[in-house]
Amino acid sequence: MTSQAPDRLSHLLDLQRLSAAQMDSLLRRAQAFASGGQAPQALAGVAVCTLFFEPSTRTRLSFQLAAQRLGAHILNFDASTSSVTKGETDLDTFRNIEAMGVRGFVVRHKGDGAVAALAAAAKPGVALLNAGDGRSHHPTQGLLDMLTLRQAKGEDFSRMKVVIVGDVKHSRVARSDLHALRALGCGEIRVCGPQSLLPEDDTLHGCVVSQDFDAALEGVDALMMLRLQRERMAEGLVESLEDYHRDYGLTEARLRRAAPDAIVMHPGPMNRGVEITDAVADGPQSRVLNQVGNGVAVRMAALEMLLG
Amino acid sequence: MTSQAPDRLSHLLDLQRLSAAQMDSLLRRAQAFASGGQAPQALAGVAVCTLFFEPSTRTRLSFQLAAQRLGAHILNFDASTSSVTKGETDLDTFRNIEAMGVRGFVVRHKGDGAVAALAAAAKPGVALLNAGDGRSHHPTQGLLDMLTLRQAKGEDFSRMKVVIVGDVKHSRVARSDLHALRALGCGEIRVCGPQSLLPEDDTLHGCVVSQDFDAALEGVDALMMLRLQRERMAEGLVESLEDYHRDYGLTEARLRRAAPDAIVMHPGPMNRGVEITDAVADGPQSRVLNQVGNGVAVRMAALEMLLG
Amino acid sequence: MTSQAPDRLSHLLDLQRLSAAQMDSLLRRAQAFASGGQAPQALAGVAVCTLFFEPSTRTRLSFQLAAQRLGAHILNFDASTSSVTKGETDLDTFRNIEAMGVRGFVVRHKGDGAVAALAAAAKPGVALLNAGDGRSHHPTQGLLDMLTLRQAKGEDFSRMKVVIVGDVKHSRVARSDLHALRALGCGEIRVCGPQSLLPEDDTLHGCVVSQDFDAALEGVDALMMLRLQRERMAEGLVESLEDYHRDYGLTEARLRRAAPDAIVMHPGPMNRGVEITDAVADGPQSRVLNQVGNGVAVRMAALEMLLG
Repeated sequence: MTSQAPDRLSHLLDLQRLSAAQMDSLLRRAQAFASGGQAPQALAGVAVCTLFFEPSTRTRLSFQLAAQRLGAHILNFDASTSSVTKGETDLDTFRNIEAMGVRGFVVRHKGDGAVAALAAAAKPGVALLNAGDGRSHHPTQGLLDMLTLRQAKGEDFSRMKVVIVGDVKHSRVARSDLHALRALGCGEIRVCGPQSLLPEDDTLHGCVVSQDFDAALEGVDALMMLRLQRERMAEGLVESLEDYHRDYGLTEARLRRAAPDAIVMHPGPMNRGVEITDAVADGPQSRVLNQVGNGVAVRMAALEMLLG
Repeated sequence: MTSQAPDRLSHLLDLQRLSAAQMDSLLRRAQAFASGGQAPQALAGVAVCTLFFEPSTRTRLSFQLAAQRLGAHILNFDASTSSVTKGETDLDTFRNIEAMGVRGFVVRHKGDGAVAALAAAAKPGVALLNAGDGRSHHPTQGLLDMLTLRQAKGEDFSRMKVVIVGDVKHSRVARSDLHALRALGCGEIRVCGPQSLLPEDDTLHGCVVSQDFDAALEGVDALMMLRLQRERMAEGLVESLEDYHRDYGLTEARLRRAAPDAIVMHPGPMNRGVEITDAVADGPQSRVLNQVGNGVAVRMAALEMLLG
Repeated sequence: MTSQAPDRLSHLLDLQRLSAAQMDSLLRRAQAFASGGQAPQALAGVAVCTLFFEPSTRTRLSFQLAAQRLGAHILNFDASTSSVTKGETDLDTFRNIEAMGVRGFVVRHKGDGAVAALAAAAKPGVALLNAGDGRSHHPTQGLLDMLTLRQAKGEDFSRMKVVIVGDVKHSRVARSDLHALRALGCGEIRVCGPQSLLPEDDTLHGCVVSQDFDAALEGVDALMMLRLQRERMAEGLVESLEDYHRDYGLTEARLRRAAPDAIVMHPGPMNRGVEITDAVADGPQSRVLNQVGNGVAVRMAALEMLLG
């Protein structure tokens, strides 16, 4: 995320360098959209391209819907399955579409920093939105999670206890959530998962880290469950799905350790029966579908801010 | 197809429970669109998603065009090729897109009843249109076939003799046509095909069933030819394409047994040289392309009725 | 390209039969679009389908953006990867989409003459734009290259020396460029490449043909570099990428043989390090990205002319 001038962003690449004021402003605008606010034709005539070097239909649909609601023209380029780039570099692919007159790019890439590298090459007036790069950043997911927390718990994060559970090590969602929670002054951030799935660098600075799920749940106001990728088994990082579920699966019984009005979040897609049971996923404390709805609102706010 | 109130449909799942009045109303509206009628922006700001768990580019395009002509935003989710649902259940996939604020879903699924199951879980105000499920239903195909019949033969179905030819057993098109023809009071419904491709349940009640194509053609006003899926050979249900063509292929010579002004229909895509010859497919009695055009009109009428 | 009446085209299939006046008119209109001119809603309510029997994401995006900027509804049908046509003929696929009410078709096909064959079957009022067929034609690429030349060198082609370099034999880009350069009266057209990649028919009539790249570069005003398809090695037409680069790769040193203000063009995607070096591709004389931008403008002009 670079800034041309104070309060004026060129791109949305991460949440680290977003000021608290900028984040608050984005969340307020997103809340207006979530409440049914319109921005008719704010992006009329503006072309936005989803440029996905790693597939993700749901995130693409969410951005697409957000762009359409603002009146943008939307193009989709699935570079992950396209055989047509024919050995072309990512940068040439990007520059080509940019040269067509596209002003907004929603980019996903498996490489850490790959979206920022493209943004560094962008022409003035062209904005990139990071839709997930490697394990590093997924800023709109972080923002939609914060919006979901605010809707349930109010704007004062200093009194909130939040726990992030699971494969934090490989999760860009967790990293963006951590940055956002810190920026908004979250009272207590707990992180819980098996040692093999916790990062060893300074990602978790200031967090209360634990491998004991039951203890980590005590009195929390919100649970952010992470998806367990099945490849973690092949990599030897997790014994089995059954073991993982026994130790870190969220059940109704476990959820009772949290505050009575605690909310449950998950970025999707859920592995039902692994990191979360049906009863919790579909239960009264689940905010999973609110997160999805907030995703469109947050992306509208981000697109409008950068391109409107 | 459930109804919230008399004459008010929530979904279009099948044609069984559509009243004759509702069907007539849909067909009149479709005829208006087929004649060039406009419904500018009837679905402005409404998001419609094609959610295909089984691929079908042509049906998807037809619905997409219908939705665009009504001013809707259109999203496409090809769940059949998408690797990105990552083991997610169909219901979670549906609920996710629904949570984004999409109000209309055009759903195709290989499982019988799968579309109705999703509809049962839909939120109020969200409408599902069945674009084909298993062998069961393809309601818009049934409606477009009825529209094509009305255009050629008038609105009084009681005087019509119609024959459905081919693999009725595995055909959702045939089932929806049968329901529609009965609802509109078709005078005589004949069904013709090899024993191995005729259903054994009560699908054909009230129909004149025959395995003799020449006899079944005598004096009919309309022929509804079905596509022969090549997998029927592997399944041992049909000896060979040559045998099938000899016994059930529609040639110009055979067509002369029908009424002189009989029309020929086919849901496409056609196996030329198998169930139909080039001369008939492209001949003056063919209404195959009229069916395609009517498909867009019928889908506009259905989308407008459910979402307008 | 057939004409209903003088100055009125039905389709854009090739550049041979385009009169100099028609080409000039298209280029002037394209220049207006390239300079920011608008044609708001010139194609409002018109449905345009990209029908690609051979994949090409970039060309498809360019046409899609052009159609959207004119207010058209756009449909995409990737017939190259679609399993859903189920053995249907190309003609039936085309006629089906045509019967849905689509008025514009952007067609790419690997077969020479395949697009013209479909155009011959089109209904009155339906327009086909050839987006590349076999080795034969790629008319909008030819036009965008001419627009790029005019922007850099002015409208008087009689004083221009242009060299086309590389695999002319298999290139529809080269053929369309040759037709366009002749129509606009280019002063000198040089063609350079290894004998195995030069056509043996009359494609090159009137051109100065050479296998000596250094000699062919002397004093030229523009270089049109062609992509070397890697399959040429497997076919034994080229020894190795290294050999090709040594003999026909455009380096900064070589470029100094051209006129000081010579421009470098490439239809993309580029094989960096093979037919062109990074320093040239990204250097001050490169017009590669201008070509891409001009592509949208030319396609807007063509769509407007045929369908507006």
